[in-house]
Amino acid sequence: MLGVGEMGQRHAENLRRLVPRARLVAVADVSAERARKVAADLEIENSYDSLDAMLECKGIDAVVIATPDKFHAASVKAVAAAGKDILCEKPLGLTLNEARDLLASVDKSGVRLQVGFMRRYDPAYATAMRRIAAGEIGVPVVFKSIGRDKDGAPLAAYQSGINGMLFYANTIHDFDLARWLMQDEVAEVHAFTTVITRPELAQYSDVVASVVNLKYGKGAIGNIESNAQAVYGYDVRTEIVGSKGSIMVGSLLGTHATVLTSGGSNQMTTDHYLTSFSEAYRAEMLDFVECILGDREPRVTGEDGLKALAIAVAAEKSSVRGETTAVTDESLSEVA
Amino acid sequence: MLGVGEMGQRHAENLRRLVPRARLVAVADVSAERARKVAADLEIENSYDSLDAMLECKGIDAVVIATPDKFHAASVKAVAAAGKDILCEKPLGLTLNEARDLLASVDKSGVRLQVGFMRRYDPAYATAMRRIAAGEIGVPVVFKSIGRDKDGAPLAAYQSGINGMLFYANTIHDFDLARWLMQDEVAEVHAFTTVITRPELAQYSDVVASVVNLKYGKGAIGNIESNAQAVYGYDVRTEIVGSKGSIMVGSLLGTHATVLTSGGSNQMTTDHYLTSFSEAYRAEMLDFVECILGDREPRVTGEDGLKALAIAVAAEKSSVRGETTAVTDESLSEVA
Amino acid sequence: MLGVGEMGQRHAENLRRLVPRARLVAVADVSAERARKVAADLEIENSYDSLDAMLECKGIDAVVIATPDKFHAASVKAVAAAGKDILCEKPLGLTLNEARDLLASVDKSGVRLQVGFMRRYDPAYATAMRRIAAGEIGVPVVFKSIGRDKDGAPLAAYQSGINGMLFYANTIHDFDLARWLMQDEVAEVHAFTTVITRPELAQYSDVVASVVNLKYGKGAIGNIESNAQAVYGYDVRTEIVGSKGSIMVGSLLGTHATVLTSGGSNQMTTDHYLTSFSEAYRAEMLDFVECILGDREPRVTGEDGLKALAIAVAAEKSSVRGETTAVTDESLSEVA
Amino acid sequence: MLGVGEMGQRHAENLRRLVPRARLVAVADVSAERARKVAADLEIENSYDSLDAMLECKGIDAVVIATPDKFHAASVKAVAAAGKDILCEKPLGLTLNEARDLLASVDKSGVRLQVGFMRRYDPAYATAMRRIAAGEIGVPVVFKSIGRDKDGAPLAAYQSGINGMLFYANTIHDFDLARWLMQDEVAEVHAFTTVITRPELAQYSDVVASVVNLKYGKGAIGNIESNAQAVYGYDVRTEIVGSKGSIMVGSLLGTHATVLTSGGSNQMTTDHYLTSFSEAYRAEMLDFVECILGDREPRVTGEDGLKALAIAVAAEKSSVRGETTAVTDESLSEVA
Repeated sequence: MLGVGEMGQRHAENLRRLVPRARLVAVADVSAERARKVAADLEIENSYDSLDAMLECKGIDAVVIATPDKFHAASVKAVAAAGKDILCEKPLGLTLNEARDLLASVDKSGVRLQVGFMRRYDPAYATAMRRIAAGEIGVPVVFKSIGRDKDGAPLAAYQSGINGMLFYANTIHDFDLARWLMQDEVAEVHAFTTVITRPELAQYSDVVASVVNLKYGKGAIGNIESNAQAVYGYDVRTEIVGSKGSIMVGSLLGTHATVLTSGGSNQMTTDHYLTSFSEAYRAEMLDFVECILGDREPRVTGEDGLKALAIAVAAEKSSVRGETTAVTDESLSEVA
Repeated sequence: MLGVGEMGQRHAENLRRLVPRARLVAVADVSAERARKVAADLEIENSYDSLDAMLECKGIDAVVIATPDKFHAASVKAVAAAGKDILCEKPLGLTLNEARDLLASVDKSGVRLQVGFMRRYDPAYATAMRRIAAGEIGVPVVFKSIGRDKDGAPLAAYQSGINGMLFYANTIHDFDLARWLMQDEVAEVHAFTTVITRPELAQYSDVVASVVNLKYGKGAIGNIESNAQAVYGYDVRTEIVGSKGSIMVGSLLGTHATVLTSGGSNQMTTDHYLTSFSEAYRAEMLDFVECILGDREPRVTGEDGLKALAIAVAAEKSSVRGETTAVTDESLSEVA
Repeated sequence: MLGVGEMGQRHAENLRRLVPRARLVAVADVSAERARKVAADLEIENSYDSLDAMLECKGIDAVVIATPDKFHAASVKAVAAAGKDILCEKPLGLTLNEARDLLASVDKSGVRLQVGFMRRYDPAYATAMRRIAAGEIGVPVVFKSIGRDKDGAPLAAYQSGINGMLFYANTIHDFDLARWLMQDEVAEVHAFTTVITRPELAQYSDVVASVVNLKYGKGAIGNIESNAQAVYGYDVRTEIVGSKGSIMVGSLLGTHATVLTSGGSNQMTTDHYLTSFSEAYRAEMLDFVECILGDREPRVTGEDGLKALAIAVAAEKSSVRGETTAVTDESLSEVA
Repeated sequence: MLGVGEMGQRHAENLRRLVPRARLVAVADVSAERARKVAADLEIENSYDSLDAMLECKGIDAVVIATPDKFHAASVKAVAAAGKDILCEKPLGLTLNEARDLLASVDKSGVRLQVGFMRRYDPAYATAMRRIAAGEIGVPVVFKSIGRDKDGAPLAAYQSGINGMLFYANTIHDFDLARWLMQDEVAEVHAFTTVITRPELAQYSDVVASVVNLKYGKGAIGNIESNAQAVYGYDVRTEIVGSKGSIMVGSLLGTHATVLTSGGSNQMTTDHYLTSFSEAYRAEMLDFVECILGDREPRVTGEDGLKALAIAVAAEKSSVRGETTAVTDESLSEVA
């Protein structure tokens, strides 16, 4: 396990406790202290303060990468060069050039690469995909998705610049769903963004919220809304409107306790993605391990990671330039 | 009452039965037969086959206009010239030029003009507005709205060309809510549309579904999805995401009967706007009558009608040209 | 219309405005003042201060009885003796003896009698009945119903003694549904009641809340909860659990506006039966009028009124005596 | 771990994976084969075919008992005699005599005993309890609970006679909640039961469904419905109606995917208690381990187990005799 912040710790716990056929032998983190603590808590034999050091460890077949976004590309390349299979958190990289470069390395080394679009493993999303694929809603016409985080990150997180802006860190999940559930590629996008409640984010090229219009290759359309601080809770919902029916996924309800007073009915909401998607993270890790043991390709490929990234890049371009923007994986399309 | 199709009949019933302080003395329709039948059913004294004939009738203080969209502008002008107050169904017109021309006539004649944005009278929308105005959700950041009709109109309706395309006939309600609930003006829009399931609509310059991105003057953003044939039901929902909380309005649930079998839980959905908004239509009419009796200005003004229309015009331009488009009420901005 | 309190006024409004084939010619109330006011508001020609006076009025074909419960039986008898059809509010009477006596009068006079179990006309309950009758949930096994009022009546209402206690005034609706939806008769009941929050009600032989267990003739079981002051809103819900599935009816949600803050999601609730069941009251009146015009029997008969009353009597006996109690329509079974 | 059927396996998995401070050193089951398999799957060192054999194993501090109901009492006594702490699945026993006898043994040996009422650890129930205790709903007036299983057990399970009938195996959870959430003791009960869809259960003194009326010591009332085969899903819901408001807990919704077609909206339901209460089972086990390590009393005591059992015994008596029945923990009150 490379990187044991919030996300990496969850992956480590899942591997250690809920994926019996895997053995988690080592964790690494730039903070040696943090790596040691997680290793101690989870009874993992080895902890390191760098990827290089960890790669020296015997008996490693695969590495899960959960570093900040900025280090994904370099980490994937190093692990691929060492000949180990990879589960890399989203996004694959922050530019199309580095993502393509990374994919070339993976290709050359012949290792497996799975990208962390864990929503595909969520029971509700998986049910939706199965029913769409079975033709229950006919031809998909409109894709809609909402992804709202509860509390915005502190300013220091923006200042550090180690993670991608909203489209890369949050909307990227919806960009992946937009391709997967609609079984078509996004051809064009248009984005409006706002910093109305935190104007200071503008200097870090980041935003508070965004709406992205989508146009698909075969003619369908869509829209994705992302929000870094919706205050009331963690809220992820997706709808696919089809010619014969629609599918809705997601719910903002948290614990099932409702208090009714003369003021109305009050229900608690979910606060955190690790709560909403705990099952998805577990299933994702299980599947990654089964891929390796069963010698088959991951279900979420490097190509998937690249294509979602290309949509994010186009969305950022659109918001900066104020134009409808084609989605292309040519390096020319990078935000200049 | 001018025009007694589906909408006009409902207005006539409401006036006749649920608005005790008004007296409905006459109905007119291009179909004299239909006018006669409605008059007989509702025990209204007079029926006519034209507006001109009806305006000869004594004792008319106000006219409700529920003709097809194309005739709104000319009808308003004629009624204003006759010095009667007006409740006109949305949209006010199909071009900004005719709407401006119409407003000038109304202005000159000094009559009242209320535009039929009845959602403002729906109990849930009215509650939302009240709570937003009270500051409960802080600064509005994102406006989201969905308007889906169940069954698409037959091809003949499109061929007749008497109603505006999707943005004018359906989305216009959301364009009005977008201004009203956010207490700000829409400055720019971007629209994608699709005819994927009915390519034959393209020749009538109409579409099956659309997504419209919004950018507000003060920096907020938004998106509106419209769908002419969502199949599963009539579904109208709006969310306003603010800096301190959010408000959701609307629900697709119809009758409150749920059937639970081993296949899951099944609930019926609402089919028609006259069901979902029956209370709103009644309250709208009551308020129009109270305006006249109390000698005050309507709550939904001609200016509101013009501004919502300007957004629709900009959205159509955007979808035709593929560009982000400024919302302006200059005639120059018309789709050429 | 006899009795124009809250309920009678609604019936009068419905008759006047929403039942075009009926003509409401007179209202009567012990308060001549109130009768006059309602007649004036609704433009009804005649108002009286007694039933006898009203029955002198020419052109009356039918009378709707909405007096306090205590006067139902005598009123029905008088109207039947005058040869007019009757829609009588629930309960039919407060003892089985008076109800049987009343039915004999109706029988002898040959007039129609419909009892005001309007929930049968509610779209959701009607849907439930249709789907049960179609066999969708197999054999009904358990009947469950909840009926909660928002605010308890003031003490004066209890002191006046003009309405039946909770089982007769509120639960009687559920006793009727218990027979209708299960298509079987209730054979035995057991009731617990409480005055925990208003001990002073005990002296008026009334209660704050109750739970009534049901045993059906064919072996099914059930339970009904009633509450005179649930504080948070008006809440009516029914479930029928069957061998192949279940049906749930009712919902406590009121206006569809949800406010989401960091405290969770908040929804308004319904306050009043006239709001929740407005459609049912209208449909009930329409059907009564159609019965008369079409010369057919009412759907909700005097027999239905008697049988629901018999369950209420048995429930009261059970709660007083602390015993499982058989439901019988013998006068012997009256609470002594 | 004693007994590794469905329930015991889950406890074993939780202990092994999700309770880091505990070490699961042995499992025992009457099926040595099953014990071996579970031990192998979960990498547990020792497996046995009897409790006696397992108690020989060194280093055991506590035993979790998840045998069939019939063996709970004897198992607890044996483990207590061996001086080990105990988490025993519900019910504590099948008669009050054996439960009292068991408690005496536990008392004498001085070991800890926690009873498996895991719903108290469910986040929604825990939230409800906290808010009731904080006075948010005022004085509790009515307790309502529903517990429905999806599929009934096969006839063989009834024939084996190793588990208690519905009141002991299923309703016992609600009997515990009825005491805990209302903070009062149940004084009297009345039960109706049905075998309408499986008359063959009568010969095994078991039932398909039941409704139990409750009367509390301080005057509140309640009702609990249980159903062994509700077909449509696993459905557990509880409401507490108070003088200032109400609390609802539970929901029948499973995965959050809704399919909308012209037939309405369709949602999947939950099938199994191990899904609905997975978090509760984990939290229960964590708390048991923390009790031991922190040397404190369990939150759910043997007394709690006895009192819930006393309600079940009274409910069974009531249903057999057709009488309102006092709840007492005297042995005289056993069903004869």
